[in-house]
Amino acid sequence: MHFINENFMLTCDAARELYQKGAKGKPIIDYHCHLSPEQIANNIQFKDITQLWLSEDHYKWRAMRANGIPEEYVTGNKCSSWEKFSKWAETVPYLMRNPLYHWTHLELSRVFGIDKLLSPATAREIFEECNAMLAQEKFRGQSLIRKFGVEVICTTDDPADSLEWHQAIARKPFGTKVLPTWRPDKALAIENPDAYWAYINKLAEAAGMDITDYSTLLEALQKRHNFFEDAGCRLSDHGMETFYAAPYTQSEIDRIFKRTLAGKVPDQIEVDKFRSAFMHDMAVMDAESGWAQQFHVGPLRNNSSRLFNSFGPDAGCDSMSDLPIARAGNLFFDNLDKEGKLAKTILYCLNPKDNETMLSIAYNFNDGSIPGKMQFGAAWWFLDQEDGMRKQLNALSSHGLLSRFVGMLTDSRSFISYTRHEYFRRILCDVIGTDVENGKLPADQMDFLVKMVGDISYNNAREYFKF
Amino acid sequence: MHFINENFMLTCDAARELYQKGAKGKPIIDYHCHLSPEQIANNIQFKDITQLWLSEDHYKWRAMRANGIPEEYVTGNKCSSWEKFSKWAETVPYLMRNPLYHWTHLELSRVFGIDKLLSPATAREIFEECNAMLAQEKFRGQSLIRKFGVEVICTTDDPADSLEWHQAIARKPFGTKVLPTWRPDKALAIENPDAYWAYINKLAEAAGMDITDYSTLLEALQKRHNFFEDAGCRLSDHGMETFYAAPYTQSEIDRIFKRTLAGKVPDQIEVDKFRSAFMHDMAVMDAESGWAQQFHVGPLRNNSSRLFNSFGPDAGCDSMSDLPIARAGNLFFDNLDKEGKLAKTILYCLNPKDNETMLSIAYNFNDGSIPGKMQFGAAWWFLDQEDGMRKQLNALSSHGLLSRFVGMLTDSRSFISYTRHEYFRRILCDVIGTDVENGKLPADQMDFLVKMVGDISYNNAREYFKF
Amino acid sequence: MHFINENFMLTCDAARELYQKGAKGKPIIDYHCHLSPEQIANNIQFKDITQLWLSEDHYKWRAMRANGIPEEYVTGNKCSSWEKFSKWAETVPYLMRNPLYHWTHLELSRVFGIDKLLSPATAREIFEECNAMLAQEKFRGQSLIRKFGVEVICTTDDPADSLEWHQAIARKPFGTKVLPTWRPDKALAIENPDAYWAYINKLAEAAGMDITDYSTLLEALQKRHNFFEDAGCRLSDHGMETFYAAPYTQSEIDRIFKRTLAGKVPDQIEVDKFRSAFMHDMAVMDAESGWAQQFHVGPLRNNSSRLFNSFGPDAGCDSMSDLPIARAGNLFFDNLDKEGKLAKTILYCLNPKDNETMLSIAYNFNDGSIPGKMQFGAAWWFLDQEDGMRKQLNALSSHGLLSRFVGMLTDSRSFISYTRHEYFRRILCDVIGTDVENGKLPADQMDFLVKMVGDISYNNAREYFKF
Repeated sequence: MHFINENFMLTCDAARELYQKGAKGKPIIDYHCHLSPEQIANNIQFKDITQLWLSEDHYKWRAMRANGIPEEYVTGNKCSSWEKFSKWAETVPYLMRNPLYHWTHLELSRVFGIDKLLSPATAREIFEECNAMLAQEKFRGQSLIRKFGVEVICTTDDPADSLEWHQAIARKPFGTKVLPTWRPDKALAIENPDAYWAYINKLAEAAGMDITDYSTLLEALQKRHNFFEDAGCRLSDHGMETFYAAPYTQSEIDRIFKRTLAGKVPDQIEVDKFRSAFMHDMAVMDAESGWAQQFHVGPLRNNSSRLFNSFGPDAGCDSMSDLPIARAGNLFFDNLDKEGKLAKTILYCLNPKDNETMLSIAYNFNDGSIPGKMQFGAAWWFLDQEDGMRKQLNALSSHGLLSRFVGMLTDSRSFISYTRHEYFRRILCDVIGTDVENGKLPADQMDFLVKMVGDISYNNAREYFKF
Repeated sequence: MHFINENFMLTCDAARELYQKGAKGKPIIDYHCHLSPEQIANNIQFKDITQLWLSEDHYKWRAMRANGIPEEYVTGNKCSSWEKFSKWAETVPYLMRNPLYHWTHLELSRVFGIDKLLSPATAREIFEECNAMLAQEKFRGQSLIRKFGVEVICTTDDPADSLEWHQAIARKPFGTKVLPTWRPDKALAIENPDAYWAYINKLAEAAGMDITDYSTLLEALQKRHNFFEDAGCRLSDHGMETFYAAPYTQSEIDRIFKRTLAGKVPDQIEVDKFRSAFMHDMAVMDAESGWAQQFHVGPLRNNSSRLFNSFGPDAGCDSMSDLPIARAGNLFFDNLDKEGKLAKTILYCLNPKDNETMLSIAYNFNDGSIPGKMQFGAAWWFLDQEDGMRKQLNALSSHGLLSRFVGMLTDSRSFISYTRHEYFRRILCDVIGTDVENGKLPADQMDFLVKMVGDISYNNAREYFKF
Repeated sequence: MHFINENFMLTCDAARELYQKGAKGKPIIDYHCHLSPEQIANNIQFKDITQLWLSEDHYKWRAMRANGIPEEYVTGNKCSSWEKFSKWAETVPYLMRNPLYHWTHLELSRVFGIDKLLSPATAREIFEECNAMLAQEKFRGQSLIRKFGVEVICTTDDPADSLEWHQAIARKPFGTKVLPTWRPDKALAIENPDAYWAYINKLAEAAGMDITDYSTLLEALQKRHNFFEDAGCRLSDHGMETFYAAPYTQSEIDRIFKRTLAGKVPDQIEVDKFRSAFMHDMAVMDAESGWAQQFHVGPLRNNSSRLFNSFGPDAGCDSMSDLPIARAGNLFFDNLDKEGKLAKTILYCLNPKDNETMLSIAYNFNDGSIPGKMQFGAAWWFLDQEDGMRKQLNALSSHGLLSRFVGMLTDSRSFISYTRHEYFRRILCDVIGTDVENGKLPADQMDFLVKMVGDISYNNAREYFKF
């Protein structure tokens, strides 16, 4: 029997029934990812499996370095595709119990129909089989997306982005909606005045107006927010180490903004005030547009100066933060809630110790307007693996409404990581099915549970986001 | 087979044997709850199941809001009992895997003998069946308590309370001891001088003396402490976000106290000093009386201003805190221990990430005087569910003496949440029984394990508290 | 069937196969422990089982106190060996589910061949049987070590130590290498200038030079580092509450050092600066020698002044800290990494909430030079039990390369705690084997998995440390 077989991750009959009836084959709404709209628009053809798998995947890089593979084979540009691939293949057996082991074989099986295990012994044949397939039309970017039944993709985009590639896709549709997501992280980043000044100029140009103070910054952003909305955007996203809810006055924020533009490096108190104000004002903008907002809380980025200086961001040297989140998180959302400006909200945490804390924040502000208005989001990044997903599903179940969960997303740069949705659905069905087998859920409610699995796999996201 | 059947939560033979022989039918000592002594004394008759289930239960409210139920059906006062109940019934199926799903059906089964699952389809019949029963004499408050075999109830009471309802119950006993618990939280709350001044006046009146400085505050509290002791109280309780152990001098505390009474809002440093001194002095009082003290550490309350302003506290918008506890916790108990003033102590934490930290604090100060003098308390509030209980039991087992655990409490405002004791006992037996099945506990020690389950269910609390 | 039988902790066939083929009987490299080199050199003969089990074991003391055993039977010196042992035997049944229950019976079975359960009923016979054996030659210290197949022992030693006992052992070898580990904690401890001054004098004497400023401190330490290297040391170890990475200048550090030697108590900022500089410079020293370095992060020690004043350190009143570690941890290693001075590194955390955070730090700095250069270390101290090991193994698997793990150590003062290696190996095999049974690892890869278990049990440590 193949490793990735029909019952993969499904350890009991009830789990298998739930998966077959409720999850398998449901369309995918990938409401948060980092796919390149340009690559989608251009219907990218991959040179080879090395480009597809190893050119941008900092998860794999991190694992290779830990397996003693020198950087030249990881991110270097001197060795051949085959050399890099063979180093990866050499690493794969050493990844048993790491999620990359499952992901790798899921992708080989589902995308390429290859059920061999990757190892030095199989590396050459798998390399050649994959490359032969990737040369075919049906392995180009759009075909891969269609193959997985992806209904909607939300990319991650800067407010100054022209959205030209989204427009190009819209003009020449291929069956999957590709929508932008509003991610204004750069407009927040006042720590580096030079880079900030350059960015604000770019934003002003995109908005077709001057930005001279904090209120014109907001005005320009509102124009771009409207522009994103016209392009089908219904969703924002924010990456941050922790929540910010320092007290501030408008004049303080205006002064901090102007001085930063004039080149003065703000101190920590000023940075906190600015972040608190800016995040609040972005949240108000989302609420007024009826969008959903996402907060990805916890990354501590670019920790190796060596890798950052030689390679740049997303090199595979990011950590999870462990700062407290409860006080500031509650205060931030309370400020919005009491002004009646709280949008639909999904809270993600990167440190699993924060799961329950985050849930206890999220569920304070549900106001009965729609089911699951304020949600605890899917296990993400470091936590996007079996242990992390089980902890997320169990914490969500114990502290909230699993049934209303909008479910999985890929958060990925890869055209073939849609197997992650299958992986998630299998684990979801195993969690619920095992409860049925153990009498913790009523065995005569399989119909409801099948529907619930389908809701989490697909329907809830459709209802919640209304793309 | 009914969902709530004889083997509910008991997944192996050893678990079933332990439950049947060691736990089932053992009396209940509910040493911490929030039942109203007035309602007990008056042998409350519930108007209907809506009053019993939905008039005070912020767990259910929180779930209903998250399910998209508008506030008018949650805490509003315009719609009928049936309308509220039907909205709750509509929510229940969406709570599968949430503890409310188990609690609801346990209560229907054990209190009303109803084994149907609650849903819109069964809502009307269940509503009417329950209401018909609640109109009977044997469903009044005292009968419900007796039905569960409750030997002792410890309510939660303010030092200024007259304890008149406890006295009324004592004059007309109904088979369950109802004792007060000393909870001086209001005497700690100097952040709001106006409310504090009003409270101190009330306390002074109750104590029959003037309170003019910190030492007369302590004197008045000691008088009330003695009064509580005469009423059978053997136990204090404290709710706090974290531990307080700032350095202070007596003259500082006296000055802070007097200035607060004079209307000055204390700053954060003054608040910390006052809390550190007051908590210490309360702990000394308990030690000198031979009482046990409980610290419920971690709530961050009333996070939604909207709900707090419209409804008040306990509206279902509380979080768990995530501040550090190790340094201050250790220092606080060390100060008491070195003065020889450390009472029997139970430490509870609201954030599951703190389980092991809290255990590592608690077990530093056991002095061999009695078994389990300093304990890690039951999973509480947000954690009072299967996942939370398993984590508490496993952490306690790995870091301490499960065998000496004083066990479960309800922490509830409800007359029928005594089913929680059954729920806890079933999970406890499943945890221990599964170890026997897996050879992690010796199979020939079932007699000891049966006794251990009985101790945790009942005997340990009786020995520890000596009510 | 005996409690400690062939299948102990092995709950499925695959686990049993992995244990039998991959783990059982592999030699032990105990690369971190607290055995006394003097006791090894002198081939200690234990007076009785009380000396062996109860004279230094603060785990047992902590459990006894929690079971209500007065201090005179715990660390007192007035009662007989039998009295102490009988109090311990009385406690043992109350330790069911605590790791001490497993450890105790593993040691009885493996060291003494006794398969009875320890309890008051068996205490006297077990006491006498053990004592009779301990009087024999083959139960002396060196024989016990040989019995367990220990290939290498790394003790824990101060830089000022003469290493005379290591030299004595080297002169009269008994089949197990006994090497020192460099643990310079005392040279860091400037909080107490008097003790620090005395220590620096001792260190100066050992180094045969004057220490007058920070640079001569480093020079003296380097001399001792070289001396340790000559004695076979390849490994350092550091115990610390959290990471330190405050900014500092060399002149600040020099001034802080000199003023401390002159008797001035440094303030908190000075302590942080000094710790940051000193830890950095120690790490550089290890890198330059090609050693591995260990950081044991998290203890908060000697929390009971009563016990510390009456008994001293290691009395059983230590806690786990809960301070943040991510920012300072990353900064500390980044500073080393960018200077090219990052040694092989093993990071241990004492608080299980930090497992994933610590892994996310460790894996940022692997540079591909060797497999597993920067590792997440074994579950330690409070976490050295089934639940802690499973969490460590699962977190490591999900966030890193389990296959490259250097595995277990005892961290113990005891000559018979080598059973811990067996305990760890059984749990490791159960974790991996259960994945095979559930189809989460490919069933046709048992050969690789057998090798992987062998690597983690023995080969990885041999390759990594190169003692």
